[in-house]
Amino acid sequence: MSTANRHWILARRPVGNGYAEAFALETETLPALAEGQILVANKVLSMDSGTRMYMTDREDSYQPGTPLGAKLIGTVLGVVVESRHAAYKAGDRVRCYGQWADYSVVEPDATYCTGLDDAHDDLKAYVGIYGANGWTAWVGVVETGAAKAGETFVVSAAAGCTGLMAGQIAKARGCRVIGIAGGAAKCDLLTREYGFDGAIDYKAADVEAELARLCPNGIDVYFDNVGGAILDAALANMALFGRVAVCGLITNYIAEGPVPGPYRFDQVLMKRLRIEGFFSPDFYAREPEFNPQLARLAAAGQLRLPFEVSTGLEATSAAFTKLFTGANIGKVVVEL
Amino acid sequence: MSTANRHWILARRPVGNGYAEAFALETETLPALAEGQILVANKVLSMDSGTRMYMTDREDSYQPGTPLGAKLIGTVLGVVVESRHAAYKAGDRVRCYGQWADYSVVEPDATYCTGLDDAHDDLKAYVGIYGANGWTAWVGVVETGAAKAGETFVVSAAAGCTGLMAGQIAKARGCRVIGIAGGAAKCDLLTREYGFDGAIDYKAADVEAELARLCPNGIDVYFDNVGGAILDAALANMALFGRVAVCGLITNYIAEGPVPGPYRFDQVLMKRLRIEGFFSPDFYAREPEFNPQLARLAAAGQLRLPFEVSTGLEATSAAFTKLFTGANIGKVVVEL
Repeated sequence: MSTANRHWILARRPVGNGYAEAFALETETLPALAEGQILVANKVLSMDSGTRMYMTDREDSYQPGTPLGAKLIGTVLGVVVESRHAAYKAGDRVRCYGQWADYSVVEPDATYCTGLDDAHDDLKAYVGIYGANGWTAWVGVVETGAAKAGETFVVSAAAGCTGLMAGQIAKARGCRVIGIAGGAAKCDLLTREYGFDGAIDYKAADVEAELARLCPNGIDVYFDNVGGAILDAALANMALFGRVAVCGLITNYIAEGPVPGPYRFDQVLMKRLRIEGFFSPDFYAREPEFNPQLARLAAAGQLRLPFEVSTGLEATSAAFTKLFTGANIGKVVVEL
Repeated sequence: MSTANRHWILARRPVGNGYAEAFALETETLPALAEGQILVANKVLSMDSGTRMYMTDREDSYQPGTPLGAKLIGTVLGVVVESRHAAYKAGDRVRCYGQWADYSVVEPDATYCTGLDDAHDDLKAYVGIYGANGWTAWVGVVETGAAKAGETFVVSAAAGCTGLMAGQIAKARGCRVIGIAGGAAKCDLLTREYGFDGAIDYKAADVEAELARLCPNGIDVYFDNVGGAILDAALANMALFGRVAVCGLITNYIAEGPVPGPYRFDQVLMKRLRIEGFFSPDFYAREPEFNPQLARLAAAGQLRLPFEVSTGLEATSAAFTKLFTGANIGKVVVEL
């Protein structure tokens, strides 16, 4: 099989959110598969802000950086078109770490790859509620945050994919839920459509003062997707023995140099807080445990996720940019 | 009874470690006890760095600040000389939040106060191994740090009272223990006398590089007494899923303005760390659980604590200063 494959490479390290300048679309002829590899026709590219870290050359990241000139990688959903791996055959639907390309060449024994069940016809569901974002929201609320009924739960990037699900999961568990998001429209959506008890527009409000007003007994669980000044505003308002579940630190991903930690870091001692990071690849293997819990919430109407779909491989850099500019509500994907 | 009582007051807020200028020794005639109060002849004043926070007017502290002109407070050991509280009688030995004075007036129903058992003739033991420092070391190692045999354990202010006990407790649990202390003499003591596997002189060494050399598999538990640059050096060297048990943040206590948090804060996410503060008053009530465990270690020769004794109430400000200038090894007390 001699097939053309368009693929995005990391042409240079992105500065800030300059992804259009950092990525380049190239075309190759696919090489023959090696033993143990599969060829996946990509159908959905999952846009995830954590991928930003792979674009740096930092050695203290959770994943090795992508070398300049190499293909950009991320979670993809697709269909196997050719297999030299015994566990996969043509026609299988898979979720894997693939390439931002028409086709992904994947070595399932060396990288994340899993076949999909038949529960959902719509492939996108497997990077939404029933994928890493859903599992992350679940773990952050239930395990890292240990949110209990009656507690006050605050989440940042609350209209984003993980934040929106985290807020709904916390609400379903009986928490009072406050979301922090950018813009009045998103805030309205959170309270009117998704059952949040309150929302703070960080672009317009004094977040620390609003948290104090909306959380008079303090924040028991802060689910953080952003770090930076909003983390500080939350730390200033934590309840005794509160938990900060650190899901993402978008502020840090984009920084060029060292970023000071939160100025209210000493609240970890003053309030006896627990600040804990968590990272979805650590619990990918627990998918069979998470999905039924998430499906139960979805069936009860307690967990919904809108998609922000871009179409065509060319749209990838613009779609990725949305994650950082606050342009999206829910899960951003590129459909091919 | 008309008795003169010398007592230290907070004459002004200390700047840095200028305690001699901030404290003033005054004399009063003791007022008659009110119902519910006891009068304690102070025998031992416990010097604790956390007391520094009570001397600020910060509202985000773990304890309300001491008003200017008010008596300085802290943990004292003494003997009841007069009682208007049913649970106490003259002659009882007590540990309580008292005043830095010849006599403490204490209201046991409103403040920490407890009678002492007969296990130790030497009163000092009740603010050493069998007091808040011992319990703090135990909780930080066993519970907050969750140190397990075979893990690498690092403690800062390792020659101080809590740090020295934390290191020994971790060692007794089978950890590899590295201490960070100021000066070659202290470092020698840690490794030669107290069984530490290694020690780093932060005044002479590049702490981050030395931690990398001494902890090639990363730090599993960092027991932090200081914060600041040493916390950053530790964060840069944590192992995946490491725990940072935040016992004290001396760097922050002394700061006049907001202090940036650790520059390596993002390691909480990159390494999936747990950073957790703990504070001994939360577990004072668990004394009956802790002391037998600590006594068992002491009986086995695995837990020893030297005292740095100053004599006479006049010596208090100089004794307190030792906690912050690195002049002490082990527990600093003032004996009256």
